Amino acid sequence: MKVKDITARDIWIARSRIAPYVTKTPLVYSHTLSEMTGANIYLKLENLQEIGAFKVRGAANKILSLPEGSRKAGVSTFSTGNHGAAVAYISSKLGIPAIVCMSRHVPEVKVKNIARWGAKILQNWDSQDDAGVYCYEMEREQGITVIPPFDDKEIICGQATMALEIVEDLPKVDTVLVPLSGGGLISGVTLGMKMTLPDVKIVGISQERAAVMIESLKVGHPIEMPEEPTLADSLLGGIGLDNRYTFEITRDYVDELAQVSEEQIADGIAYIMSNHRVIAEGASCVGIAYALQQGNIQPGSNVAIVVTGNGIPMSTVRQIADTHF
Amino acid sequence: MKVKDITARDIWIARSRIAPYVTKTPLVYSHTLSEMTGANIYLKLENLQEIGAFKVRGAANKILSLPEGSRKAGVSTFSTGNHGAAVAYISSKLGIPAIVCMSRHVPEVKVKNIARWGAKILQNWDSQDDAGVYCYEMEREQGITVIPPFDDKEIICGQATMALEIVEDLPKVDTVLVPLSGGGLISGVTLGMKMTLPDVKIVGISQERAAVMIESLKVGHPIEMPEEPTLADSLLGGIGLDNRYTFEITRDYVDELAQVSEEQIADGIAYIMSNHRVIAEGASCVGIAYALQQGNIQPGSNVAIVVTGNGIPMSTVRQIADTHF
Repeated sequence: MKVKDITARDIWIARSRIAPYVTKTPLVYSHTLSEMTGANIYLKLENLQEIGAFKVRGAANKILSLPEGSRKAGVSTFSTGNHGAAVAYISSKLGIPAIVCMSRHVPEVKVKNIARWGAKILQNWDSQDDAGVYCYEMEREQGITVIPPFDDKEIICGQATMALEIVEDLPKVDTVLVPLSGGGLISGVTLGMKMTLPDVKIVGISQERAAVMIESLKVGHPIEMPEEPTLADSLLGGIGLDNRYTFEITRDYVDELAQVSEEQIADGIAYIMSNHRVIAEGASCVGIAYALQQGNIQPGSNVAIVVTGNGIPMSTVRQIADTHF
Repeated sequence: MKVKDITARDIWIARSRIAPYVTKTPLVYSHTLSEMTGANIYLKLENLQEIGAFKVRGAANKILSLPEGSRKAGVSTFSTGNHGAAVAYISSKLGIPAIVCMSRHVPEVKVKNIARWGAKILQNWDSQDDAGVYCYEMEREQGITVIPPFDDKEIICGQATMALEIVEDLPKVDTVLVPLSGGGLISGVTLGMKMTLPDVKIVGISQERAAVMIESLKVGHPIEMPEEPTLADSLLGGIGLDNRYTFEITRDYVDELAQVSEEQIADGIAYIMSNHRVIAEGASCVGIAYALQQGNIQPGSNVAIVVTGNGIPMSTVRQIADTHF
């Protein structure tokens, strides 16, 4: 099986390459969800990665795949979220210079979360788009490689390593529920899973608001949409009008798509807090939200739900505690 | 070094014995506490054990050390907290019958937390003391071994395995902060640490309210005290007037003792929620509370703080979120 230029070997190489830098996260049994659905439900807790998100897998694989000279010249990114933190973290582990470009308006807490890993922060722009333009200028003029957030072969292969861990811990897995945004994660998990256990079903789950990939798939090509506020804010953002990988992989290999409401996402956050005593962000909890609705889950089947990260404001945690406990 | 009848070899045997049943928990760097204290502070996240508490170490070692015949006859306990869950969990993993005896007044949520692991629950008594008496009757008459919660060689050696993991992950460790209750945990961690790296300093930390071990050490022998409500409720309970191990080990080998207030414990719970995105119980957070007060922590030193478990009511989590976020 070869999907575009990605093979099973690329994924196994990624796994071997990133092993020293990435945590093998636990796949934990979820008693209450299993009782509710009649299925055996497990959670893949990527929120327990050291940076608090799965993004470290793709960033590690991409940076480690660069030739020695490019590594020395350094890397850049313009993501202010989990991907930015992942690039900064891996660069610091490898002793590679990293620059993260941001708009002046990025809140202090996000800046600090990336600066803690030692990356150089540049904030000379009024928009995130302008910050991105500058990254690509540095790439052309100074050979500083831009590490893209999702639509990239090595990023996808990095995220795919999660599928291998799920198979190792739950070889009888029937279904995997995966948060769906730009499609880097779901492309990786889908290829990693189908190249290992071809009959495993993948369900991609987005928020209801501004789900760009799902709307793009409906019209048959990548589109742009205005963002809307959502508890699953890490799932916001476009898929790129010139999308190279993730649109086609999602279209051709993901078995089902679903969307969950804001209230359902809040219930998912409350579920993982009270049942697993971890704090996960809204984007992380769309799979739990789907299962809590009983979604399309076969009784008796073995289901892994990917929980992606923990970057949620504590004020939101307080609001959810107030309404749920 | 031999302390009572415990040697380093006993601890290494425990480690090898329990390895298949116990998670090697992560030791994570705590950025904010490190910045605040000028030390390098790490948290040993035992709340990430599958049952949510370190108690699984001692219970596993004790049960696995029983001869084949005793294992077949089964085990019992009368703890309704983390130790009860640990005994039930390990017994279910090993296919050993387990009975947990409780008073009729134990709240449903605690009963369920133990019953989920398949233990037989008996609730024929009006007090927990009477439930305990029945356990020892079953031991005498039916050969069903009582698994004691802390004052036992194999329990202590099980808890000691945590020290070996800390040394593995942080060989430059200077100081370990350990919650102090009946003394099973601190006896284990202290012996495990001093038999491996003799110059490591151990600080035992209790709540201010009804800290039985600390008050017993002051008067020179085990005493009883009435319980008082505290956020660190898992640290409540006596040390046994006929204490065999933990009183002397704590007296002779723990370097410092300290106590923290209810407000400080609440700050500790809030700290780990916002900085590490995990929910830990009050008893777990006394070490963090001590460090937040700057306690007696040497700048530049390497400090491991043991975080013990996650059994906190969600209503308490809500209250702390309301006052802290």
